[in-house]
Amino acid sequence: MKAQRIELDHGSGGEAARELVSEIILPRLDNPVLRFMDDSAVLELGGGRFAMTTDSYVVDPIFFPGGNIGSLAIHGTVNDLSMQGADPRSLTMGLILEEGLAMDDLIRVLDAAGEAAREAGVCVVAGDTKVVPRGHADRVFINTAGIGPISVGVDVSAQNARPGDAVIINGCIGDHGMAILSKREGLDFSIPILSDSAALNGLIARLLASEVPVHVLRGPTRGGVATALNEIAEASGVGIRLHEEALPVNPSVTSACEMLGLDPLYVANEGKCLVFVPAVRAEEVLGVFHQDPLGREARIIGEVVEDHPGRAVLRTRVGGTRILSTLTGEQLPRIC
Amino acid sequence: MKAQRIELDHGSGGEAARELVSEIILPRLDNPVLRFMDDSAVLELGGGRFAMTTDSYVVDPIFFPGGNIGSLAIHGTVNDLSMQGADPRSLTMGLILEEGLAMDDLIRVLDAAGEAAREAGVCVVAGDTKVVPRGHADRVFINTAGIGPISVGVDVSAQNARPGDAVIINGCIGDHGMAILSKREGLDFSIPILSDSAALNGLIARLLASEVPVHVLRGPTRGGVATALNEIAEASGVGIRLHEEALPVNPSVTSACEMLGLDPLYVANEGKCLVFVPAVRAEEVLGVFHQDPLGREARIIGEVVEDHPGRAVLRTRVGGTRILSTLTGEQLPRIC
Repeated sequence: MKAQRIELDHGSGGEAARELVSEIILPRLDNPVLRFMDDSAVLELGGGRFAMTTDSYVVDPIFFPGGNIGSLAIHGTVNDLSMQGADPRSLTMGLILEEGLAMDDLIRVLDAAGEAAREAGVCVVAGDTKVVPRGHADRVFINTAGIGPISVGVDVSAQNARPGDAVIINGCIGDHGMAILSKREGLDFSIPILSDSAALNGLIARLLASEVPVHVLRGPTRGGVATALNEIAEASGVGIRLHEEALPVNPSVTSACEMLGLDPLYVANEGKCLVFVPAVRAEEVLGVFHQDPLGREARIIGEVVEDHPGRAVLRTRVGGTRILSTLTGEQLPRIC
Repeated sequence: MKAQRIELDHGSGGEAARELVSEIILPRLDNPVLRFMDDSAVLELGGGRFAMTTDSYVVDPIFFPGGNIGSLAIHGTVNDLSMQGADPRSLTMGLILEEGLAMDDLIRVLDAAGEAAREAGVCVVAGDTKVVPRGHADRVFINTAGIGPISVGVDVSAQNARPGDAVIINGCIGDHGMAILSKREGLDFSIPILSDSAALNGLIARLLASEVPVHVLRGPTRGGVATALNEIAEASGVGIRLHEEALPVNPSVTSACEMLGLDPLYVANEGKCLVFVPAVRAEEVLGVFHQDPLGREARIIGEVVEDHPGRAVLRTRVGGTRILSTLTGEQLPRIC
């Protein structure tokens, strides 16, 4: 670790963030559960298996098309638990408020959080509120942690991808990140970009109930689809091949990305999941997903291969191949 | 709620904070578990009973005599679980880092957190790191959430105080708050004030193993002993009488409080617990506590009475009686 100070890209979800976690943080807090780099930890408690996770939300702006920091904080943690195959149940919420925050803004945030929790069927069981003087935080930061039981027989992990698996996504990519950035940059589109922020626990519950053997579930959040696939390729020791022409991207997101020089494959999502199942079972997954509003646009976007283990590559529209490296440098600070 | 904006005393642990929680936050996130105002929530999960809690730490300065924000974040959440009679097991840690934070400072914080976790016998099972641009946070904020099982038969709650109970504390009051404030104000004392920040789970485990019927356990953190006792008096519908001459206060804390115009009864502690047991069993508790370094100075400081339900009063050295109101106004911002 060469950096002497924390830089913005240490929070990007990309290479610098990985380095910070693996070289500075993990060695100091190490234990067998923490070592796995999944969206949630898996732990044994009182005879049962549970997933547990935490996320702090520092998104800027706090209100954006399609949601606000309150709904995002519920959706993100519900999804992190869902991506471990758990049934999200109990969340905690820690608020850090800046002196001077308008009470009406706090109320809008909490209304959205409450509604998101009710819709997802989870309870916020414990909370904490801190206030810091003006200029020592940015309006409101929210941490949510959560826990949920994992059913017997469910074993999803970034380490479980196998050659022959199909890679499925439940809809368009890049909406959340570009909704935030468009708002921040004051960009206007004829069709405005809405964040895809949503709780996926219902969709995942249907999938797990279908008894299709699910190998990997992953939320392509910070760092986007490309970074998530790279992490899975590395954790499982396999190659992943993505098909550019199969990738669903909203036209407004494509335009915004072109304008800002971004690749939608690296842009954060908050209501998407990557699903790895044996290719022969992929159609069953699509059948389940297409019945759910959050999975209506689900499709197969790639496959797991034996070639180039540890790497994800993109098969381009013109038939070329491009290596999808992990995100380096700061692309989108404070996107979640 | 008259305030149109968040003010510093909304985070004080006193009256304004209670109002914010009860009028603005609780109604929006309401559910049967959240309604109880204990240090942790109690939930049923997979057949077992668990305590779950969260706290964000925004203490300023982040390094103080007796600890730093890293050890504090572990101790605080371990203690919140212990105060519910739970056995703290798994913690999550969310870091919000300010761009420009010295890597060496982060390392000192994480080293302290790791050591505190090992000493307390808990695992940090999941983590998250966010970075915000310079000037949008203050160096480092830490959220820790935690979970732990509650043994069958243990039923401690702020609602369980009964007339005839003795009120016991495990040592001197006000050390944490005055260590922070002295450092912040640049005060020097011949005997420096050290924070009492410590994990109490070992001490509480000994107490619960003794089979003394424990009615209430409470950490007198933000708002201090007076605020904690008021909350218990209100939750249980009883009166609490405290004896001024019995209150253990370090001489340096007394001096610092006099200098700064503070009452040690309202100053935060981070390694103290209030224990309510039937008076006839109080000596057994002292016997258990006196065997532990964290309980060596334990003593009886008051009792539960039928008079003045909902209120705590102080019986002064000269024989007078003073009502201990809940903390109002901002006393000590960013003390934890």
